[in-house]
Amino acid sequence: MEYIFSDRTNNLKPSAIREIFKYAADPTVVSLSAGNPSPDAFPVKELEEISARLFRENPIALLQYSVTEGYAPLRAHLRKYMKEKYDIGSDKDDIIITTGAQQIMDFATKSLVNEGDVVITEAPSFIGSLNSFRAYNARLVGVEVESDGMNTDKLEEALKANPDTKFIYTIPNFQNPSGVTMSLEKRKMVYELAQKYNVLILEDNPYGDLRYSGEFLPAIKTFDEDGRVIYAGSFSKVISPGIRVAYVIAPQPIIQKMTVCKQGSDVHTNIWSQMLCYEFLTKYDFEAHLEKLRSIYRAKARFCMDLLDKYCAPEITYDKIDGGLFIWCRLPDGVDMPAFVRDAIDHKVCVVPGNAFLTDETETTNGFRINFSTPTDEQLEKGIKALGDLIKSY
Amino acid sequence: MEYIFSDRTNNLKPSAIREIFKYAADPTVVSLSAGNPSPDAFPVKELEEISARLFRENPIALLQYSVTEGYAPLRAHLRKYMKEKYDIGSDKDDIIITTGAQQIMDFATKSLVNEGDVVITEAPSFIGSLNSFRAYNARLVGVEVESDGMNTDKLEEALKANPDTKFIYTIPNFQNPSGVTMSLEKRKMVYELAQKYNVLILEDNPYGDLRYSGEFLPAIKTFDEDGRVIYAGSFSKVISPGIRVAYVIAPQPIIQKMTVCKQGSDVHTNIWSQMLCYEFLTKYDFEAHLEKLRSIYRAKARFCMDLLDKYCAPEITYDKIDGGLFIWCRLPDGVDMPAFVRDAIDHKVCVVPGNAFLTDETETTNGFRINFSTPTDEQLEKGIKALGDLIKSY
Repeated sequence: MEYIFSDRTNNLKPSAIREIFKYAADPTVVSLSAGNPSPDAFPVKELEEISARLFRENPIALLQYSVTEGYAPLRAHLRKYMKEKYDIGSDKDDIIITTGAQQIMDFATKSLVNEGDVVITEAPSFIGSLNSFRAYNARLVGVEVESDGMNTDKLEEALKANPDTKFIYTIPNFQNPSGVTMSLEKRKMVYELAQKYNVLILEDNPYGDLRYSGEFLPAIKTFDEDGRVIYAGSFSKVISPGIRVAYVIAPQPIIQKMTVCKQGSDVHTNIWSQMLCYEFLTKYDFEAHLEKLRSIYRAKARFCMDLLDKYCAPEITYDKIDGGLFIWCRLPDGVDMPAFVRDAIDHKVCVVPGNAFLTDETETTNGFRINFSTPTDEQLEKGIKALGDLIKSY
Repeated sequence: MEYIFSDRTNNLKPSAIREIFKYAADPTVVSLSAGNPSPDAFPVKELEEISARLFRENPIALLQYSVTEGYAPLRAHLRKYMKEKYDIGSDKDDIIITTGAQQIMDFATKSLVNEGDVVITEAPSFIGSLNSFRAYNARLVGVEVESDGMNTDKLEEALKANPDTKFIYTIPNFQNPSGVTMSLEKRKMVYELAQKYNVLILEDNPYGDLRYSGEFLPAIKTFDEDGRVIYAGSFSKVISPGIRVAYVIAPQPIIQKMTVCKQGSDVHTNIWSQMLCYEFLTKYDFEAHLEKLRSIYRAKARFCMDLLDKYCAPEITYDKIDGGLFIWCRLPDGVDMPAFVRDAIDHKVCVVPGNAFLTDETETTNGFRINFSTPTDEQLEKGIKALGDLIKSY
């Protein structure tokens, strides 16, 4: 039998990162290609305690169907918490809980984007989100990321050239994969350009709480006087990714449409996960937990940058990071990046080729992404030394 | 700000059942409008035990990112179990785990259906699935359900009239909302018609294990020599709906495309839930658990039918059921069904108007759906007596 797929998914390929994962599964290869939180970062004891108590006290609520919008106490807590701590959300916004933040990208695109409409993204950008947009046949337009965020001149050019743009997708903090943080000035500028060209902004902030140096910067959502910012928050990096809990704060009409999308997709997010998050956020010291995570990742990031300096300089360069889980590395001119990444696997180290993060994967780049949160310190040293040995052998 | 939504979701409305739920939330109203498993049906003690053990033995696996296809031991177990017990699945099929079975409807439609393509469904059919199809602007064509399943003459007419049909959606066992089970003859006929008109079949079987009388019938998927049946199974009715675990067995190319859709949506299903199901299926007596569920629902179904006979006959008629959670009731000619349902709420009982389950909600029907799994016996008696009093007052 011949299968004829929908136009929207006909050209969808499994993500390039997943192909890389095949090599990463080889235990003799050091994987610097993942994006998993460090195993040390999970509040195992607390979650174990909460889960046992929920089973004792409220097992039926834990196992029964629940509402699409999400666990009401968690929604109420997050609304208050995000307003008080970050000035995010207004009376015209609403909040729903989703099954991971990727689902926010899915439902935002499903709600807003017709096939062929444009989504403007940073270039490079997070491959998972790019694939969510591609799955509705959105046309992706990439705007170069500089050391302080999107090039706003090029953003304006892109907006001018693409009047059918529906939204600008950005990860302002410790961007995946570039590690770059957008400056305050550019955050304001991006919002002003969205106003000028009357488009929405999809602001994705999975790493915001993982700032371990430099100064806190407000979310673009805090400037949202018009109701044009969809803000995606997630517990994947600060509690656990396996439990799949995220939240979206956006103007009520958009939240209503996304809720109908969720009704027709997974109906509601796992209720145990939602109750787990609520209890952890409200009955434990979440701020102390975040501080602990920052100290774990601060140490790992510094260790990783020191290794890059020690083994890979001056051939491989990188931008220093202030948070998040990724470092973007650049090869010297004249080195073929895809060949380098393939050779690296022979040297038993796996990184993600930078073109995987471009809106057009066939474009060339000299960049690749490394992750330091998943490997142990020993693995990090082994892997980065191998990258250094390889580049010096060229 | 004015929000312009995508064409595909522009006309999507929140489901009519959800509107009904607003009344159902009033504690003085008896709700016969839900579809929740009975609280007695959850294996609370076993799941509590498993969860505690998983936290002790394997906490990091429980909390870390996992693979999109699903927990490998659960997939392997289900592949074997479904083949051995039900003869479902072949070498050309594959299986993935989803976040509830509704997500299967979402991804099947996303993978296969272009906007304007036709999906043929039973009429009436499950509103959740209809909304999944509508969310991609599928054109729904309903085929009347008789006491032994879809009218196959009308199915053939619909296939002939709609050459752009992508699949036939059917719930062959204890259909929601009609309670009807498709005969063996019609199962074969539906498959033959799918062959003749070269369309796929989406076979949804959430209630199959809840047969409490009559003879077991094989799934349409067992006839699938061509690879044209997508089979959706679920643990929502036999373990817990709150944990959101289902599975789809389908030809490999379709599974691959659905996997890419899942990568771009919720990435993977909650891993705790998947491990919970795996442990419960393999380390406990699942067959004894199913037998217990059947005895709970057999008693509740009989009690409900006895109440209908006692309080509502001869005005309200219904088809006897052999399984599942729903009974379809019919009002006498000349009674305005929507008015009856509204009056019922004044009489403190809430049922779902039948038109909510039609492909065109503005069509008329004299049917409404009642659920007997959620209410207590006392609530059932109170609610059905109220329906009887109401119809006799007309």
